[in-house]
Amino acid sequence: MTFLRGMDLSRNIIIALDVMGGDTGPESVIPGAALALEAHPDLAFILFGDEGKVRPLLDKYPALKGASTVVHTDKKILSDDKPSAILRASKGTSMRLAIEAVKEGCADAVVSAGNTGALMALAKTVLRPIAGIHRPALASVFPTHGAGDTVMLDLGANVLVDAENLVQFAVLGAVFAKLHKGVETPSVGLLNVGSEEIKGPDHVRGAGKILADIDIPGEYCGFVEGNDITKGSVDVVVSDGYAGNIALKAVEGVGSMANHLFKDALTSGPLAILGGMLAYSALKKLKVKLDPRRYNGGVFLGLNGLCVKSHGGCDALAFSSAVNLAAELAEQGYIEKVGREIEHLAEQGLS
Amino acid sequence: MTFLRGMDLSRNIIIALDVMGGDTGPESVIPGAALALEAHPDLAFILFGDEGKVRPLLDKYPALKGASTVVHTDKKILSDDKPSAILRASKGTSMRLAIEAVKEGCADAVVSAGNTGALMALAKTVLRPIAGIHRPALASVFPTHGAGDTVMLDLGANVLVDAENLVQFAVLGAVFAKLHKGVETPSVGLLNVGSEEIKGPDHVRGAGKILADIDIPGEYCGFVEGNDITKGSVDVVVSDGYAGNIALKAVEGVGSMANHLFKDALTSGPLAILGGMLAYSALKKLKVKLDPRRYNGGVFLGLNGLCVKSHGGCDALAFSSAVNLAAELAEQGYIEKVGREIEHLAEQGLS
Repeated sequence: MTFLRGMDLSRNIIIALDVMGGDTGPESVIPGAALALEAHPDLAFILFGDEGKVRPLLDKYPALKGASTVVHTDKKILSDDKPSAILRASKGTSMRLAIEAVKEGCADAVVSAGNTGALMALAKTVLRPIAGIHRPALASVFPTHGAGDTVMLDLGANVLVDAENLVQFAVLGAVFAKLHKGVETPSVGLLNVGSEEIKGPDHVRGAGKILADIDIPGEYCGFVEGNDITKGSVDVVVSDGYAGNIALKAVEGVGSMANHLFKDALTSGPLAILGGMLAYSALKKLKVKLDPRRYNGGVFLGLNGLCVKSHGGCDALAFSSAVNLAAELAEQGYIEKVGREIEHLAEQGLS
Repeated sequence: MTFLRGMDLSRNIIIALDVMGGDTGPESVIPGAALALEAHPDLAFILFGDEGKVRPLLDKYPALKGASTVVHTDKKILSDDKPSAILRASKGTSMRLAIEAVKEGCADAVVSAGNTGALMALAKTVLRPIAGIHRPALASVFPTHGAGDTVMLDLGANVLVDAENLVQFAVLGAVFAKLHKGVETPSVGLLNVGSEEIKGPDHVRGAGKILADIDIPGEYCGFVEGNDITKGSVDVVVSDGYAGNIALKAVEGVGSMANHLFKDALTSGPLAILGGMLAYSALKKLKVKLDPRRYNGGVFLGLNGLCVKSHGGCDALAFSSAVNLAAELAEQGYIEKVGREIEHLAEQGLS
């Protein structure tokens, strides 16, 4: 791609950004990228979006400006574009160009806060699944009681799956947890309605039987339940996209409710306000730990290229978390590692 | 039943209690029943359990003693009894006798903190589903941001359901919400992975189509998502038992995590402790609102008799919530009302 001329390609990791995606577009994406660059100084960016909007913002972040190339397009995917219309209408949009940059080897990962359905459809069409993978899956990271996070997938890419799909998700998630959590043998659980072997739908029980018998890059620990997600009982929780999406949103809903009610309580009267001020530093730590912006970023796993979805309503901090996740997985060679594990699955007769 | 001799049957509502169920049995059930009697002075109880354990405890609660008949049995269902063995082994157990008391018209409702699988299997076998109901469902009440609660079902009685089952759940839940929340036309949503009509599994989309066309004792509002449970977007959230159980436990898990982390934060140093003390009254109100013990009680809906499941690990306050729920639905004639609505469904060609 000609836009790479003049870019410092000695930097390690190049991230393609859909600058126009999300509710606020460049307003969150540009400062978010600047924050991510502070955390990962070896990043370089290709910014796909409307130059007239991108350049003035970029001038405020000289370090980011030095690490970025802007590729102009005034076309973008709208948040209410119908999935059926997206493939047709996507040519030349900031989202599609950013994905194509990964496909063409110009970038190591793409990050977008745009329309989820569009991003999944385009990423799948342009990047294609890794050989042997039937269904790519959306994964993310959840906070827990303890120190470690939980990796969970699928969060909604596939409503209907079979046992073999779930087994592949287990491998996709285990490699993610290995790199993200730095554990050699991540523990893996299948999300179900109880821990007994006879419980649950056919595809979950079927996956349990296969996982008990084969070699995966982690340790299969049986069925887990909804409360195990935030309990941190296992490193990876594997689910179909139906139950996974409902669980994800249920968790987000309770988090948001607790946050609102708690704020209300600590502003409900002079004593409560004073108490909140005294406990400020302790509560601040808790707020940081549970801040949903720290957990922003759903990685679309199983494709020939890294694609990270940020919440549409993200701010700069939230967007930077999504970029950090993309950078972390790209730096550690997620795609190559997972490719080898999928080959290893095939050697065991699972395809 | 001869044990009713001498009991004051002019009291309105009689509750049969499985005193031996749950982790602590009579230790929680007896004081829990005493608490419920304070809230509902017109209740009477039939206490099924080991007399040697029940009577000494009952002596401590004279009001409850005056409102109760004890029926001795030293047989009980164990928490790890396998579902297959339960029907065979259940004869004469405190749980089965309590359910049979409802079947025989001696009690209006049964409450048990025992083995969930056993309670569901026995209640279904002994009480039988209401004519026209294919699958009974487990329902409970969730706290929300605002003032009202959300009724949700099925929470795990049926993993696999079809569209017609979900439509019946909508009716079971709407009548529950009418009585519990006191709203004339409860709003009803179907739990799904998105609000668009084309999203989700077949049985959920199929139920959506039927509900849009028929007359139910509530207003069908389309699909809702996991976060709508605690947002209070609708009065009733309808789901299959697979996604419903996972969502329920995910919500409980986040609640428990938030509670633990919050306690840790407010005891993490002298300033935090002092702050917590000053804000005590405001935080206490919040704690009461979100206290899971207030939401204890899963009602097994769709049977010819009211059966309420309490958490096995309940204390007295939690057990009293389950009894209060049973009393509330019995007083308002849930079974008769829902029976008429199921007939009305059949008149519309749905059976």
